[in-house]
Amino acid sequence: MALGEFSLIDRFFKRAAWPLGVDVGVGDDAAVMSVPSGHRLVACKDVLVQGRHFFADVSPHTLGHKSLAVNLSDLAAMGATPLGCLLGIGLPTVDETWLESFVGGFSALAQRYDCPLVGGDTVGSDQGLFISVTALGTLPDQQMGLLRSAAQVDDDIWVSGTLGAPDMALRIMQGSVTDTHGRLPDLRTALECPEPRVALGQRLLGVAHAAIDISDGLTQDLSHVLKASNVGAVIDIDCVPVHRELDVFDAPLRQQAVLHGGDVYELCFTAPTQARATIEQMSRELDLPLTRIGQVCAEQRLYGRDQSGRSIDMATHGFDHFSGGDV
Amino acid sequence: MALGEFSLIDRFFKRAAWPLGVDVGVGDDAAVMSVPSGHRLVACKDVLVQGRHFFADVSPHTLGHKSLAVNLSDLAAMGATPLGCLLGIGLPTVDETWLESFVGGFSALAQRYDCPLVGGDTVGSDQGLFISVTALGTLPDQQMGLLRSAAQVDDDIWVSGTLGAPDMALRIMQGSVTDTHGRLPDLRTALECPEPRVALGQRLLGVAHAAIDISDGLTQDLSHVLKASNVGAVIDIDCVPVHRELDVFDAPLRQQAVLHGGDVYELCFTAPTQARATIEQMSRELDLPLTRIGQVCAEQRLYGRDQSGRSIDMATHGFDHFSGGDV
Repeated sequence: MALGEFSLIDRFFKRAAWPLGVDVGVGDDAAVMSVPSGHRLVACKDVLVQGRHFFADVSPHTLGHKSLAVNLSDLAAMGATPLGCLLGIGLPTVDETWLESFVGGFSALAQRYDCPLVGGDTVGSDQGLFISVTALGTLPDQQMGLLRSAAQVDDDIWVSGTLGAPDMALRIMQGSVTDTHGRLPDLRTALECPEPRVALGQRLLGVAHAAIDISDGLTQDLSHVLKASNVGAVIDIDCVPVHRELDVFDAPLRQQAVLHGGDVYELCFTAPTQARATIEQMSRELDLPLTRIGQVCAEQRLYGRDQSGRSIDMATHGFDHFSGGDV
Repeated sequence: MALGEFSLIDRFFKRAAWPLGVDVGVGDDAAVMSVPSGHRLVACKDVLVQGRHFFADVSPHTLGHKSLAVNLSDLAAMGATPLGCLLGIGLPTVDETWLESFVGGFSALAQRYDCPLVGGDTVGSDQGLFISVTALGTLPDQQMGLLRSAAQVDDDIWVSGTLGAPDMALRIMQGSVTDTHGRLPDLRTALECPEPRVALGQRLLGVAHAAIDISDGLTQDLSHVLKASNVGAVIDIDCVPVHRELDVFDAPLRQQAVLHGGDVYELCFTAPTQARATIEQMSRELDLPLTRIGQVCAEQRLYGRDQSGRSIDMATHGFDHFSGGDV
């Protein structure tokens, strides 16, 4: 069924928008927003393609959620406060039930993080579904954000939450791992409904040095930070927090998922040792595990060690969204 | 050939970015920009899909140009000054020559309008090429932009440039019109290399009332303005400026292309009659034709009249990008 462009917009997207803080929202050539005085603008864009970033049978509600979540996660990794977002979507067909549900998932997250939909573009696409979201945020003027290049020698390395679940879900869904203990439902939620660490990112401003969100896997994303900062790191492998549903899987498989598995959207950040108490307090206040997993060193390589002191190869095997990546 | 994500970014996109006015550009989780104090932020997004918005054989250089041009055109229609842009692109294969040329076309326009590439995302796409660009701009704080809802009764209606060429190019390329006089090369340039009217939009701030860029056809886009402003209009059909290469085509076909043909990216705007001299002066200074084509009226319908005073049906037959459209 073909719907005229304006009925699409009126019926599905206008209700995902709301005027608070937005001077001109959905429905004109462009959106107009006020950036609070004394603030910088932060902007990021993530694209999701069917078959690469989500399965064809994904629930549209969770897809709506994830499309925005991965962008809010990029804002979080800069320490930015969400300002608004734009949605570009290519639709093979116009399925009203599907759209209703997609917009529902997108809007619920947008409202939770006060990040209104301010504009975008819907187009027909003969070639499958794709989604492109741009998120806009702000930073106080005196702050440049949590840059990848800001890690310093002797910084602690921290991660939020737990790792490994999305990768294990993918392996089960792709058939390379058997789900003997019926853990897929919870693991799949971790894959499809990541929670962007927006509040954490904001609090880390002025406390942490460097930060990145773990989209391509801990080792690969941490490597970007180390490379940009001209430093190295040693990771205490046994300290890396493992998702609780992974306990039933073999240790080597679990370690692979935790160290190299992508699509996690937790934050990995570095901070001076003096900040430990502050960060632990933050963890309690946010009710979010924040775990020290290693230390930044001057030698420009990334290596791991386990409790026995054995050194472990940390070569990058991270999840690579098909040779793509943030520009 | 598959290239790792970081080599793609380093090799093709970093050079399209430059640091002027950008605090953090390509290469971190998000871009950071300073919005000049006392300015509002303007944001828009347009998506282009192979087979819908461009032919598979389009030159990548012109496609790079057009991907950004259609977004700059939206900024122009608000009267905004470009600040920066983000590029999302789904690539079926990584063809270095193609990418080189695409980035060349994109960058040349970005530099011309001082709109640096500040971020984005490149992904693999099994299902054909798609491009999603977000453009960011600024408006002085006391200005809300050239809104669609701001047309007033008795305003003059103006258009920039000439109309009809992109539509005629499309008809020839799709085989419904024969190019007896070999006009396709020039017509195709109008289709594939539109010039965004950025300088005009900026100058119209405080002079014009409403504005829109003609992406879906004069009648359809003007109808959006009229509807949003709760007014109507009468168009002097014979005054609408026709692209010079259309002289060899039959009058009804020409009129169809001029009134309803899309993909033009000229501005249609309304302004009080007292602004005529100012706008004519603007036209001379910008070396850009600006033509009065009609008047806003209170009766909420759009109709045309020719020199003989005959009334002409102006029902909307505008170019519709497959039921898609700006959100």
